[in-house]
Amino acid sequence: MTTIGVIGAGQLGQMLGYAGKQLGLDFIFLDPSADPPAARVGPVLHFPFDSEAGLKQLADAADLITYEFENVPVDALRKIDPGMPVYPPAAALECAQDRLAEKHLFVSLDIPVPAFRAVDSAADLRAAAAEIGLPLVVKTRRLGYDGKGQLILRELADCEQALEALGGNDLIAEQWVPFDREVSAIGARNVSGDIVHYPLTENVHKNGILSVSRAPADDDAHGATATGYLHSIMQRLDYVGVLALELFVSGDALLANEFAPRVHNSGHWTIEGAATSQFENHLRAILDMPLGATDMHGYAGMLNLIGTMPRNRDAFGSGLSHLHDYGKQARPGRKLGHATVVAGSLAERDAALGRLARLLFI
Amino acid sequence: MTTIGVIGAGQLGQMLGYAGKQLGLDFIFLDPSADPPAARVGPVLHFPFDSEAGLKQLADAADLITYEFENVPVDALRKIDPGMPVYPPAAALECAQDRLAEKHLFVSLDIPVPAFRAVDSAADLRAAAAEIGLPLVVKTRRLGYDGKGQLILRELADCEQALEALGGNDLIAEQWVPFDREVSAIGARNVSGDIVHYPLTENVHKNGILSVSRAPADDDAHGATATGYLHSIMQRLDYVGVLALELFVSGDALLANEFAPRVHNSGHWTIEGAATSQFENHLRAILDMPLGATDMHGYAGMLNLIGTMPRNRDAFGSGLSHLHDYGKQARPGRKLGHATVVAGSLAERDAALGRLARLLFI
Repeated sequence: MTTIGVIGAGQLGQMLGYAGKQLGLDFIFLDPSADPPAARVGPVLHFPFDSEAGLKQLADAADLITYEFENVPVDALRKIDPGMPVYPPAAALECAQDRLAEKHLFVSLDIPVPAFRAVDSAADLRAAAAEIGLPLVVKTRRLGYDGKGQLILRELADCEQALEALGGNDLIAEQWVPFDREVSAIGARNVSGDIVHYPLTENVHKNGILSVSRAPADDDAHGATATGYLHSIMQRLDYVGVLALELFVSGDALLANEFAPRVHNSGHWTIEGAATSQFENHLRAILDMPLGATDMHGYAGMLNLIGTMPRNRDAFGSGLSHLHDYGKQARPGRKLGHATVVAGSLAERDAALGRLARLLFI
Repeated sequence: MTTIGVIGAGQLGQMLGYAGKQLGLDFIFLDPSADPPAARVGPVLHFPFDSEAGLKQLADAADLITYEFENVPVDALRKIDPGMPVYPPAAALECAQDRLAEKHLFVSLDIPVPAFRAVDSAADLRAAAAEIGLPLVVKTRRLGYDGKGQLILRELADCEQALEALGGNDLIAEQWVPFDREVSAIGARNVSGDIVHYPLTENVHKNGILSVSRAPADDDAHGATATGYLHSIMQRLDYVGVLALELFVSGDALLANEFAPRVHNSGHWTIEGAATSQFENHLRAILDMPLGATDMHGYAGMLNLIGTMPRNRDAFGSGLSHLHDYGKQARPGRKLGHATVVAGSLAERDAALGRLARLLFI
């Protein structure tokens, strides 16, 4: 038996586990949380993510290490015995953790991005406003997620206040893009360098958290371009595993926002909606198996279930929908599960998704 | 959380568990085996299947009871507290356990069957040979599986020997059907009485064990007829759960062989090959959720991995294939896993299935 050690034991780890157990893999997780979602698929070592003792125990128990969230301390990852395969590579993680390094990577690959500038002082922020114009999106360079660690600066007068709210330095100011839609390109690259990608997904966020994904994106004109960017990034980083690239569509422009070196919420529809799920392909990639086909089964949509789960499974009014319940305690703003719809036509998909949304949220 | 109690903890229970955990269900199993496959998804109570203490513990821990193999003692099932839902219903199990009762059910529903006769003595067997002709398939009425508990009687002279080999009484003699192909019809009925069914599957057995399944069956002419039979059986039995009906195609004739009151090996392709797997639909049925769509994703094929697993996952030469490893100890004749291929055309499916068979078995 091959045992996969996973840093992080949230729902992404849980779904990696569900996919991997069918492949005959065993799992062990590292996570300080008391009863994390992935405890439903394997034992959890309860240590902080940067605990040397925890990482050593994980490495001792596993044949291969991966991670399910991008805030794993890179230094901790680099302390793991060099004989132990760790995928995706630490350099990719390091780049994804720093919004400035990420932007420089995009620029070096001729991938268009919103105008940006590093900000470490009020003077920097004023210079950014002068160069790029207002409003500006000001973000911490590190440790942001789900809309946290960022704000919109609309008036120069709020400059000092914005800096204070975000810690004062190690920030990045970005052009505010009045985008028409947000899309994500998801793909996998295995150890041998083979690459597959899924059709472009369109995403709608509410309060900074992903609410709905639809695939393929209604307007697939940007699909080939986005996929080209995805391939460039994976090749440059000598990447292994699943990578998700988030982009803005603004008129004819396609601008890279950020990438996640892991399976991604906007790819959950692949469980029922594609020939091979992102979770199975992540595992096939890091085990250097041939990657699974990524063809879509018709039209897919995914709704995140946030804060409360439907009380009654009868709420599923349609045979086209699949419920995923992560088994978490309900808490406002918490991702508790998701529902996927797969249908034969775009109209049928959107009708089923609408019905489901009404049943679940009313 | 809803907890499903499952009698039996083999690979069928394991795959029910994989499907159900995504629905947020918990599982507990009853099985005397030391380390059964379903231990990978939930705790196992180690008791004989007819142990009152074991069944009581299972019922105490579960909200609902189901089973994953058809040799569960019906009396044991009937001893479970009547307040506890047990699906599929005990009457269906009882009928499936007795080849004679099963044949009478088919006949009462105008479902054609091979000629048959109950056999409790040499005189009965000789009478059967006179009425039906030789060769005859002689089977024990109960507890046969995977070709065990049956033989072919070619000469009247072997009559006594055949009876002795099978225990002498409680037998059934059936017309030997020179069938062109074996097919199975699989469907689900929920508590409310809704029914769904999958496309007809064609099956090839080797040494009495399922070797390969293909769906949809190459010649779908019999699909509607077989599906009609399946619906009649489920309605008559007030059935709840997944039911698999095995049939012989012999020229223009379609003859029912037997049914299994459970998820079925010939339906494993539904995990990747259909909109909703047989495992998820079994759970949706017994929980009285709306049943999931059963549309196929192209053309599917399944190979059982018997006796040995491929040593190297690189053996998967195609992105169209999915490996399932049940995590069992290898033993000659033992089902250790399966591989599924899903492709866009019949030719592509058969080519991929052929490649896979060569990679796995050479």
